[in-house]
Amino acid sequence: MTQALRIAVAGLGTVGCGVLKIIQQQGDLLSARGGRPLEVMAVSARDRARSRNVDVSRYDWVDDPVALAARQDVDVIVELMGGTEGPARDLCTAALAAGKHVVTANKALIAVHGLALAEHAEAANVNLGFEAAVAGGIPIVKGLREGLAANRIRRIVGILNGTCNYILTAMHKSGRGFDDILGEAQSMGYAEADPTFDVDGIDAAHKLALLTSLGFGTRLDFDAVSIEGIRHITTDDIRHAESLGYVIKLLAVAKADESGAISQRVHPAMVPAGSDIAAVSGVFNAVMVEGDPIGRVMFEGPGAGEGPTASAVVADILDIARGDRYAPFGVTSPSLTPFRDAAAGEQTASFCLIITVTDRPGVLAEISRIFSDHGISVQSMRQQGRQPDSEVPLVLTTHPAPVQAMENAAALIAELPSVRPHVRRIRIAAM
Amino acid sequence: MTQALRIAVAGLGTVGCGVLKIIQQQGDLLSARGGRPLEVMAVSARDRARSRNVDVSRYDWVDDPVALAARQDVDVIVELMGGTEGPARDLCTAALAAGKHVVTANKALIAVHGLALAEHAEAANVNLGFEAAVAGGIPIVKGLREGLAANRIRRIVGILNGTCNYILTAMHKSGRGFDDILGEAQSMGYAEADPTFDVDGIDAAHKLALLTSLGFGTRLDFDAVSIEGIRHITTDDIRHAESLGYVIKLLAVAKADESGAISQRVHPAMVPAGSDIAAVSGVFNAVMVEGDPIGRVMFEGPGAGEGPTASAVVADILDIARGDRYAPFGVTSPSLTPFRDAAAGEQTASFCLIITVTDRPGVLAEISRIFSDHGISVQSMRQQGRQPDSEVPLVLTTHPAPVQAMENAAALIAELPSVRPHVRRIRIAAM
Repeated sequence: MTQALRIAVAGLGTVGCGVLKIIQQQGDLLSARGGRPLEVMAVSARDRARSRNVDVSRYDWVDDPVALAARQDVDVIVELMGGTEGPARDLCTAALAAGKHVVTANKALIAVHGLALAEHAEAANVNLGFEAAVAGGIPIVKGLREGLAANRIRRIVGILNGTCNYILTAMHKSGRGFDDILGEAQSMGYAEADPTFDVDGIDAAHKLALLTSLGFGTRLDFDAVSIEGIRHITTDDIRHAESLGYVIKLLAVAKADESGAISQRVHPAMVPAGSDIAAVSGVFNAVMVEGDPIGRVMFEGPGAGEGPTASAVVADILDIARGDRYAPFGVTSPSLTPFRDAAAGEQTASFCLIITVTDRPGVLAEISRIFSDHGISVQSMRQQGRQPDSEVPLVLTTHPAPVQAMENAAALIAELPSVRPHVRRIRIAAM
Repeated sequence: MTQALRIAVAGLGTVGCGVLKIIQQQGDLLSARGGRPLEVMAVSARDRARSRNVDVSRYDWVDDPVALAARQDVDVIVELMGGTEGPARDLCTAALAAGKHVVTANKALIAVHGLALAEHAEAANVNLGFEAAVAGGIPIVKGLREGLAANRIRRIVGILNGTCNYILTAMHKSGRGFDDILGEAQSMGYAEADPTFDVDGIDAAHKLALLTSLGFGTRLDFDAVSIEGIRHITTDDIRHAESLGYVIKLLAVAKADESGAISQRVHPAMVPAGSDIAAVSGVFNAVMVEGDPIGRVMFEGPGAGEGPTASAVVADILDIARGDRYAPFGVTSPSLTPFRDAAAGEQTASFCLIITVTDRPGVLAEISRIFSDHGISVQSMRQQGRQPDSEVPLVLTTHPAPVQAMENAAALIAELPSVRPHVRRIRIAAM
């Protein structure tokens, strides 16, 4: 029998315990698939006394996680502590420098420091695996890095945050508001006590930055992700979307233009109710990839949780066991091309505008004129109900138009005397 | 620069030309991702003079494909000729024996001779890649072999034949019959002149056998696949399915029971109209995988055609270029466990029965008695319209019941004097 692959796990929360559980319960299966046994040598976590759903007493306990990097009896460091700085970063950096493989589920760390870590990994000829950092159990990192490697990627569209997708799905189904559903999600464990990273789109943006680099072969640029969360989505927005045949989803989109410049965006968007992406409900994640010559492929599955995330962590470990070596972002760091941000002014998109107007002759004409002045073609316009001299919602959809022109037009519309200043503007995703 | 990976392509039909096209057009991208250039050294096909949409004159032309295996200047043989025996088998066997990697899209060859070929590949420490043999561009072979390798697989459900899915989708949408739609599919190039392999389920069965081995770690057993095609599906079946909230799909299902015995089945099945699998339309393929600890993941994409299939072929080539070595079925051949067929008598399933009865008192009672005698619980029963003493369709659905009991019951029902002998029986898939 080949020598065991020796592992240390730092961080014993849900995912860490899930990883230990698979290794304990499915050891034979993993040995067969990895070609050698997996052996956990040491673990580290903040609270040794905490009750866990898996036996950790059989492993060497280390208080300082960073010390794991120096152990001679460890081949792979599994980092599951989280955080962009501090012990997570220190441990990964030290482990790679010491010639140890690193497997992590830490999207924030990789989104911010991934390039430097990849350089370390390549220099040491070890793996830096982060399958678990994006879309939980869905093997999308390997999918882009290897499975779709023959393709020139045009666009990646993801539902990458299960909390947001749960909230939006529940808002659609129940007609209840954001705060109400968020509270429920928190009590059910689908949302954190501090939901900022999730509902403000930051978590999805971290993941998108990784997918962009993998898909387009560009250097990571998390700061170039434009981010809009879902806090401001109202039950009215949901209702209007439905009446137009759309569902509102928090999408993470990376798209290359003809010149190779890329836009990275996280924002709520209306997607056609019959589309595959619209059907992704609850805490599920999905990633749709468009490229040449494949066309379009979609991966869907559980985006978080103990089992799915642990599945991804162990897949990365098995790659190491098999001896599969790869550049963390698919091509070696020096071959990653600089990220060129597609100028916002040159991007086009279709929009839905929800405008509260005073029902009075001439309002539509004024709004139409502003659109036409900005070269924006209106696709549909619907006023719900007639109530002369009262406020009524006017729901408009446009054909694709320059985003900047749309912003300018919306600002002018908001200044019209018969229009309430708060003009709501939601992208319509081309699916 | 590392030495080029030298390739020979045997078979220059749609997929072969697609592979050459990617290599010609996206060479830089492939070099970056594979870590070395790909270089086509030689090609072989039946008809040299045939007009092709890619320049093949730049390559060495070889009339006898099997001779490619002996070339000293080739590292990888790409077999795209098809066929279970003859040159395809001879070439692959000779190439592996000569220590060359083999990449193929030939599902029939792998389904029948895959184990012997895998043994050759493992002995020579070379790859036998067949990503393109299952579900076109969807990276499901890699997905099972690596991406989901941490999981104990419970069930695989696939829509693996684009021709059948196109025909069934069109039957649902148009209300037209099988023959009509098949003719149309043939004229549009979605079905072969001889559609037997596709519409009789053999192609899907070949692919399923591969997924079973990959997912469950069992020795290939194509002969153990029970196969039923879609020729017999009528517009009435489609209509009844719709009225019950189902869509009829040709499913390929591999499922392990508690004891580890596996059933492999290809058959039309009713799937809930709102399910992910039901939404897979036209020539698209999809594979849903259920396992522990991941839960459920689904892959969806184009299941055939030049671009998608070539994408999969080139992905296998890039694995070779990177130096990624794997056992073709995820674990080495000696570690594959013998396939144990789940005894048909012990399998359970829900069914929809469509029975033509003479509308006469007592018929329902007789049918109900037969079900109850066989321990089958009826879930719903609906007679469409009342026409005393005339024939009317009776549509029944059952709760899960032993398949053998259902067959016996259906046979007895068909013998009742008030029942037309042709009792239609379609499985309802649990999704």
